[in-house]
Amino acid sequence: MTPILTAFATSPDRGQGLARDMRVRWALEELGVAYDVQLLSFAEMKQPAHLARHPFGQIPTYQEGERVLFESGAILLHLAERHRGLLPAGDDARMRAIMWTFAALNTVEPPIVERSMAWLLEREQSWYAQRQVMLDERVRTRLSQLSVWLGDRTWLEDEFSVGDLMMVAVLLRLQSSGMIDGYPTLAAYLARATERPAYQRAFAAQLAVFQSR
Amino acid sequence: MTPILTAFATSPDRGQGLARDMRVRWALEELGVAYDVQLLSFAEMKQPAHLARHPFGQIPTYQEGERVLFESGAILLHLAERHRGLLPAGDDARMRAIMWTFAALNTVEPPIVERSMAWLLEREQSWYAQRQVMLDERVRTRLSQLSVWLGDRTWLEDEFSVGDLMMVAVLLRLQSSGMIDGYPTLAAYLARATERPAYQRAFAAQLAVFQSR
Repeated sequence: MTPILTAFATSPDRGQGLARDMRVRWALEELGVAYDVQLLSFAEMKQPAHLARHPFGQIPTYQEGERVLFESGAILLHLAERHRGLLPAGDDARMRAIMWTFAALNTVEPPIVERSMAWLLEREQSWYAQRQVMLDERVRTRLSQLSVWLGDRTWLEDEFSVGDLMMVAVLLRLQSSGMIDGYPTLAAYLARATERPAYQRAFAAQLAVFQSR
Repeated sequence: MTPILTAFATSPDRGQGLARDMRVRWALEELGVAYDVQLLSFAEMKQPAHLARHPFGQIPTYQEGERVLFESGAILLHLAERHRGLLPAGDDARMRAIMWTFAALNTVEPPIVERSMAWLLEREQSWYAQRQVMLDERVRTRLSQLSVWLGDRTWLEDEFSVGDLMMVAVLLRLQSSGMIDGYPTLAAYLARATERPAYQRAFAAQLAVFQSR
């Protein structure tokens, strides 16, 4: 049975691949798992049929027959556990890959999302410019710490894992800001990751949805 | 070998149990795992010795011999996988417990933390009152959706899991705001969880640290 992923019918990023279905698409491509996509409008995401799958009314969800999961982190972890390719062998290495998935979502993404939300919802407000300085500083603190960790490493640990996939997906949200340019180590890390054929296939698939609307 | 947890030498919450070591203490108590605590000052958290354990210079970290983990979500998942009591049997139930752990950290906690950060860093600013209305609304959206999901359930799924532990730890950050009072379902859920002897022991342990300083 082909699993079904939900995604925005009209992604607010206009095909930039920043919505959270992209992480799942990328993981599915890395793992060689075929999938179908169900597109939802914003109105449909708040209807009972979708809320039964996702109590917070968001995308993505991931369905395999009767099993329904939401939260991109949980979906990625589920896929990485079921298929070979995104979790290293060995208890310690496996746990550290999972740790980086949480770090991407809980330590690196929140200041990035907060910065994006401010732009989206508060850029006409008198306080926007003053707050932006503070929000940028919070993001830079994380970028700087992550850059130090990466140093000469190719990936966060010895091999590419679900942790890298999530970290890269999170960092790509900053691409249009130019902030990554200040961290050559991170820019090179993003380039390595987005050159992966699985990333390219996933990106093309989500772009095709946007272009077909 | 007794595992070592790092925690604030002087918790900014003055013993309210809101720092992220509390989640790990609670999990360790639920699972019956003895542990030692290493207390760190804010300055020590940014020193090379700690940054080698935690590249973002935060607490908690969790060490078992050579193994070091950071991110409270990853630590909880590691513990829940190694010991019986916080992950249900059965693939589906196990995955949904993990899913709720991610939901607590990625969907429910961010607006709560953003609200707390605004109070901490921006409450003297001219825009604080106006932004607070918006931040409260974001939190209430999540509380309302979570309350609908819980309905008559005792826990998020059939039995208490790592997902409930994390969700409760996150919601407790709102306790002093009074916002939970508007959601009797959530207030009852928090009461059930915090009555657990393991929670009580963990709370007492972190409070003792604060009172001893």
